[in-house]
Amino acid sequence: MSVVGVGLIGGSIAAAVKQRSLARRVIGFGRSAERLAGAKANGLIDECRTESARAAAESDLIIFCTPVDRIAAGVLEFAPHCRTGTILTDAGSVKDSICRQIEANLPGGVTFIGSHPLAGSEKQGFEHADADLFVDRVCVVTPLPQTGAHELQRVVDFWQQLGMTVVRKSPDEHDRLLAATSHFPHMVAAALALHLTDENRSFVASGFRDTTRIAGSDPALWDAIFAANAQHVTAELDRFVTTLERFRTAITADDRASLQNLLRSAKTNRDRLD
Amino acid sequence: MSVVGVGLIGGSIAAAVKQRSLARRVIGFGRSAERLAGAKANGLIDECRTESARAAAESDLIIFCTPVDRIAAGVLEFAPHCRTGTILTDAGSVKDSICRQIEANLPGGVTFIGSHPLAGSEKQGFEHADADLFVDRVCVVTPLPQTGAHELQRVVDFWQQLGMTVVRKSPDEHDRLLAATSHFPHMVAAALALHLTDENRSFVASGFRDTTRIAGSDPALWDAIFAANAQHVTAELDRFVTTLERFRTAITADDRASLQNLLRSAKTNRDRLD
Repeated sequence: MSVVGVGLIGGSIAAAVKQRSLARRVIGFGRSAERLAGAKANGLIDECRTESARAAAESDLIIFCTPVDRIAAGVLEFAPHCRTGTILTDAGSVKDSICRQIEANLPGGVTFIGSHPLAGSEKQGFEHADADLFVDRVCVVTPLPQTGAHELQRVVDFWQQLGMTVVRKSPDEHDRLLAATSHFPHMVAAALALHLTDENRSFVASGFRDTTRIAGSDPALWDAIFAANAQHVTAELDRFVTTLERFRTAITADDRASLQNLLRSAKTNRDRLD
Repeated sequence: MSVVGVGLIGGSIAAAVKQRSLARRVIGFGRSAERLAGAKANGLIDECRTESARAAAESDLIIFCTPVDRIAAGVLEFAPHCRTGTILTDAGSVKDSICRQIEANLPGGVTFIGSHPLAGSEKQGFEHADADLFVDRVCVVTPLPQTGAHELQRVVDFWQQLGMTVVRKSPDEHDRLLAATSHFPHMVAAALALHLTDENRSFVASGFRDTTRIAGSDPALWDAIFAANAQHVTAELDRFVTTLERFRTAITADDRASLQNLLRSAKTNRDRLD
């Protein structure tokens, strides 16, 4: 199998596959031969490839772990060189735009099925790869109506073998749900961090640190996610502003009962996550 | 010395004082004799008091650790029974409204100086008390122009002996700064948690957990904080919505450069906290 893009996610997938002996060999594909050599030296991959045609022809399963705005182009670059029956999937945080671009242009004989393993970190690079990153986490797979059952099962099996619970959603449903639980909260963390100043920085405690931790993530990954899920993210923004206005109305009216109700509902929701 | 309100903060102060032998004895005051007996059994306090007149007369330093909407009334209830020279302070997360109410009504011979140790947890109750909760944290003290230097030094020394860095601000400056770094971020975490549903709960990963952790805090503490710092919190809300609109404008225009700039600035700010 091949992992395209050997960063935190790609490196962790490679490490997990090797630890569990799920493939005869793991090929790492990337643009930087030097970075790939580092991943190989760290024992994450067996082979390094910088030519897509070669990596494509050698693999029965190819997992694209690049930033979301490079996944569709990468799949379409690899696909013509793949053997018949090759399955391509990804680890991108948005699904609808990727699946649409690929579906409209994919040659016959190969299958693409979108995946999104809900695991990660604000850290970057294969140096932070972790073979257990996916254990007990959820992976969303987003087959299309015409996706073959056999191919879907192969992708589901793969993530399950990494220790994940696999949930099936349409690409658009995925994007709507993740806008609420990941993409928009990321924007919120960034917006809070933007309000840090030299004056107020000393007055930050653990609550602010927790709330803004993901603002330390790689900006280049997240502008692409916001752009690719623009509609659901901005809809979530609207809903959020409406919720903030409920707080404002209660505060302005000194309506302690309504404030308590909002905070109690929030706590009930949050406590159910633990 | 006395601690009024032996919960997480009061219990941690008591534990720190005893661990460091900073007082001959620590008196715990509260409304529930049963809870106080528990704190005493846990070794946090030496004596239990439920009569304010008695606790007031026995202490040279009294620290109010009740919810913010009970601090001013508590101070004014204790003050007439205090010996001349007694110093009263607090651990409340808002300062201006508390200092104003007390200053206008405090009898002569005693001094109140506002304090806010920036330490805490979403946990509640003395059962989670931690003698090291305050080490290497910031404590804001908010003396008024007429506050005596000797009394101020006593309060500063106290928090420093608990391991804290003490910063002096006016009560209103404190409230403005903390609106940005604590109070409004708390509202944001609660608002995000309010958007959890049975449908999207499974699609939460570590980022959402971090961002909403403080939404698990005691609602009864936070409605009082929002109400007591209404002006600064709603001003911060306005600024935040303006920042979200900058994201929306960039997303809608597919202006990736502006999105990157926003995210980069956020990351730079956040990284400076570590």
